Amino acid sequence: MTHEFRKVALVGLYTDSRVAEPMRAIAAYLKAAGAETLAQPEVATEIGATPVKEAAIASYADLIVAVGGDGTMLHAASLVSGNEVPLLGINRGRLGFLTDVSPADMVESFDRIFAGDYSRESRMRLRATLRTSEGEERSALALNDVVLQRRDTGRMLDFETRIAGRYVNSHMGDGLIVSTPTGSTAYALSCGGPIIEPDLNAVVVVPICPHTLSDRPLVIPARQRIEVKLQDRDDTIAEVSVDGHSLGEMNADDCLTIAESNERVTLIHPPGYDYFEILRSKLHWGRDSRNQRRSE
Amino acid sequence: MTHEFRKVALVGLYTDSRVAEPMRAIAAYLKAAGAETLAQPEVATEIGATPVKEAAIASYADLIVAVGGDGTMLHAASLVSGNEVPLLGINRGRLGFLTDVSPADMVESFDRIFAGDYSRESRMRLRATLRTSEGEERSALALNDVVLQRRDTGRMLDFETRIAGRYVNSHMGDGLIVSTPTGSTAYALSCGGPIIEPDLNAVVVVPICPHTLSDRPLVIPARQRIEVKLQDRDDTIAEVSVDGHSLGEMNADDCLTIAESNERVTLIHPPGYDYFEILRSKLHWGRDSRNQRRSE
Amino acid sequence: MTHEFRKVALVGLYTDSRVAEPMRAIAAYLKAAGAETLAQPEVATEIGATPVKEAAIASYADLIVAVGGDGTMLHAASLVSGNEVPLLGINRGRLGFLTDVSPADMVESFDRIFAGDYSRESRMRLRATLRTSEGEERSALALNDVVLQRRDTGRMLDFETRIAGRYVNSHMGDGLIVSTPTGSTAYALSCGGPIIEPDLNAVVVVPICPHTLSDRPLVIPARQRIEVKLQDRDDTIAEVSVDGHSLGEMNADDCLTIAESNERVTLIHPPGYDYFEILRSKLHWGRDSRNQRRSE
Amino acid sequence: MTHEFRKVALVGLYTDSRVAEPMRAIAAYLKAAGAETLAQPEVATEIGATPVKEAAIASYADLIVAVGGDGTMLHAASLVSGNEVPLLGINRGRLGFLTDVSPADMVESFDRIFAGDYSRESRMRLRATLRTSEGEERSALALNDVVLQRRDTGRMLDFETRIAGRYVNSHMGDGLIVSTPTGSTAYALSCGGPIIEPDLNAVVVVPICPHTLSDRPLVIPARQRIEVKLQDRDDTIAEVSVDGHSLGEMNADDCLTIAESNERVTLIHPPGYDYFEILRSKLHWGRDSRNQRRSE
Repeated sequence: MTHEFRKVALVGLYTDSRVAEPMRAIAAYLKAAGAETLAQPEVATEIGATPVKEAAIASYADLIVAVGGDGTMLHAASLVSGNEVPLLGINRGRLGFLTDVSPADMVESFDRIFAGDYSRESRMRLRATLRTSEGEERSALALNDVVLQRRDTGRMLDFETRIAGRYVNSHMGDGLIVSTPTGSTAYALSCGGPIIEPDLNAVVVVPICPHTLSDRPLVIPARQRIEVKLQDRDDTIAEVSVDGHSLGEMNADDCLTIAESNERVTLIHPPGYDYFEILRSKLHWGRDSRNQRRSE
Repeated sequence: MTHEFRKVALVGLYTDSRVAEPMRAIAAYLKAAGAETLAQPEVATEIGATPVKEAAIASYADLIVAVGGDGTMLHAASLVSGNEVPLLGINRGRLGFLTDVSPADMVESFDRIFAGDYSRESRMRLRATLRTSEGEERSALALNDVVLQRRDTGRMLDFETRIAGRYVNSHMGDGLIVSTPTGSTAYALSCGGPIIEPDLNAVVVVPICPHTLSDRPLVIPARQRIEVKLQDRDDTIAEVSVDGHSLGEMNADDCLTIAESNERVTLIHPPGYDYFEILRSKLHWGRDSRNQRRSE
Repeated sequence: MTHEFRKVALVGLYTDSRVAEPMRAIAAYLKAAGAETLAQPEVATEIGATPVKEAAIASYADLIVAVGGDGTMLHAASLVSGNEVPLLGINRGRLGFLTDVSPADMVESFDRIFAGDYSRESRMRLRATLRTSEGEERSALALNDVVLQRRDTGRMLDFETRIAGRYVNSHMGDGLIVSTPTGSTAYALSCGGPIIEPDLNAVVVVPICPHTLSDRPLVIPARQRIEVKLQDRDDTIAEVSVDGHSLGEMNADDCLTIAESNERVTLIHPPGYDYFEILRSKLHWGRDSRNQRRSE
Repeated sequence: MTHEFRKVALVGLYTDSRVAEPMRAIAAYLKAAGAETLAQPEVATEIGATPVKEAAIASYADLIVAVGGDGTMLHAASLVSGNEVPLLGINRGRLGFLTDVSPADMVESFDRIFAGDYSRESRMRLRATLRTSEGEERSALALNDVVLQRRDTGRMLDFETRIAGRYVNSHMGDGLIVSTPTGSTAYALSCGGPIIEPDLNAVVVVPICPHTLSDRPLVIPARQRIEVKLQDRDDTIAEVSVDGHSLGEMNADDCLTIAESNERVTLIHPPGYDYFEILRSKLHWGRDSRNQRRSE
């Protein structure tokens, strides 16, 4: 066994039986393999692991295993800001974009990973900072996306964007997504954004249901800082969320800046990981591919 | 006057009066400025320039000025494969994405450029290579895009793509666009592709009217080689075009590869050039931005 | 002068000077023409009109003139549920889809309309009814659209639709628009819906940013009743709005039904009204139509 | 057995074994049921049917059974212009939009249909007429769509549309689709068109990869006549196809008109036919519908 991963933290919604079962199996596997299992206190007692508060788990673990859907993986990623503990995602059902190991392949994958036979992949994150006109500042890291969205019915958001200090556009619509390559297959895709290969250090800015039909997704180098401000209006309620969690409400004189973070996330993949295979599976590509007339 | 641009070649469709007039004005300007004007023989006699065959013009000129639309600029770019003569685009009417100087601003722009007050921008090009099963090989450089498209009515193309040696997808539909950032605002945009800032060294792969609705544009690092093959069918006629010009017909056993070229293009911009301003102008952004209810 | 329109009600946001000015001009015109002007009390004193509460205005007027944007026209339409007073829309700035008379053409248009030289157009409306599990029922008429939309950050709505009693689909995403032809050029268009000619008695059901990429707009006969229910979830907050105004919050056991209403709206157009001309103007069609290569 | 369908014609690509097998089974079934089987001569000898030339088959048959994909069904429909023989579609593999009976359900479906337990559905067709400037006229019926498309590389088509005599728009792009509700799930869907329920007597006009991004699908009443003309250009090659078959080349002075035909098509469905179920199956709807965060 490799000495790399001696302390392995398990993260996931233990109350979901589809999560609890693989978690118990992993804990047993790790014990047999001579590794220490960490988990948050309530879970630790259930699976015989060392209890560690979730917020501190990244300080103790050599590896974090997220069991669940991609949302669980995003949560696990939020625990590793600022340090470099790698993450491994086990899906509770069918594969996710981030949780790319199925329960069925779990044991074999661990065998390979513990034998040192795995790949590491570094994924970019964005830092979103919301500065209010009173000088308050809230900030969070996004592995998927930063979303500015209207909250009140019937009104459009009216906001402007600047990239690397240059004015880009005044937008009207439901809001804006600033997405990493990782997030490009999540909400941004539903809003008409392109898929961005994780290897590319880029960010996509996707207007949500824009009033102007030519207001299209824009892909820029990740190093360029994005600034968003609401147009002067007294009564709109806008909200900023990061990886699906609210960062706060945004008002007319506030400023939202989004910039590449140097706090990246390291993903662990068992051998045979293939990004395009996951795309094909998740997007139902390659069906209907039989000899057909256009009109069929 | 700067000594940089002593020999300036003019390229454009002289038979179009909206082109001929600025061409004559530029030739007069250059003469007064002590620079030599080059043009292809038929045009040279009209405007008092030194006649040079167009195909060789890049070997003699220090600067090529394209007068016309973006298509003229693409043509001018095709003349500078392999060397580094910069290009300047003068539009014959309203601005283009590439021909970003209007006739009205032309003289002032030349004054600034000849005084050394300008910026250089390097744009990526793609090399498309079509290899037939008999071993024939045709190749061309694309500043905008490489397009694979069906030619016969009623049938879909059925083809598969590989990126950096990895299988991506089997596509059915009208074809595929592989576009540079420069080309992302041309045909690719009409087919649902995103806008890519020219600073980003990326390529977008855009399926044309795909049968599978989740077959979406994919943005990848420019360094990754793309391979396209038709699925085994005896009767489809597909055509490959590069910047709007046919490279040839593609058949079932042929292979189309597209890769970043190191033969880039250098564009000259007068001071004040702003990529986003051109986007706003060309895409009619920022209209309708008055205080509105969603329902308006 | 025709005897048809003896009592003309003016509706609009009088506090907006771009509205107040044409309103005063119309009041003066009507006085000179021997017609009575009606307006809500605060406005009536300003423009020398007979004061009538806005909610009752349709009971007294032979014609309602809405001055403002399309939102003002929607508001005016909401005043005429159940009776057949026709509406005329005067735009305060450039033309709207519904407010198709500009201030500049206003006097001439009134001359023609009062001379009996105008056309009537009947537009379909939808009735949205939200029934809670406790048996409460709220209902409203939509000239544009009925929108079901999530209100909380980070979660998708999960809901199912039935049409004419038949199960259609389970949707996940930001919500759903059910739009009349009139509303097809409003929010539904921003969400990927088609334009529907007002002559066609149809309704379009448009998913908002759907998770499933093949979940596409569906056009159905207006006579078919649509039912929407949220999937069983305890914690989602969804809101229903009608022509941009909240009808209420929707919870897991509530049911939203949408059906063609027989309370239609009658629009008055001066001679020369052309639906396609308005489309061309509002959507900036027909630009860039000069002789171009694809690659331009 | 019902006396309705005494002569049943079989249509399909007999050289495809997935077609031949169900064809033989149907012929045997019909013989046992006391009905006469008709087929084109080459097929008739193989399956023991009465030989009838395909072009005349609709004059002899009481029912036409198409075995294959939706393309086969379109072909079968082309045989019944002008008379009212109903069509039944048997798919050779998984279900199609039109061939809605699977080989597995075939026998049971025939039992029900021959017992009179089935539904009839009338589908609208379009008549496309291409008139050249020399007065030549070619015409065909479309169950799916009429498509105008460019054939040469690198050039956009530039054409204008009129509906019911009124000018609509000048379009630039790859072409135009005019689709029936039946065709709305075929090529038009790949080009961004909506799904139109077959009950709705409407037509959708879908621009193909339009240069102007706000040039969107337009749904109109089927009774309105559509006219398309190319803008004056000497060198474009455009082609008109009807249900995937070429109607002819279109040149600058030619005129293409598309109008609802009164030669409709009657489809036969076994009990339980559900249009929305076919949509769900063909478009992979309703997947991924488990409890998810947006970011999953």
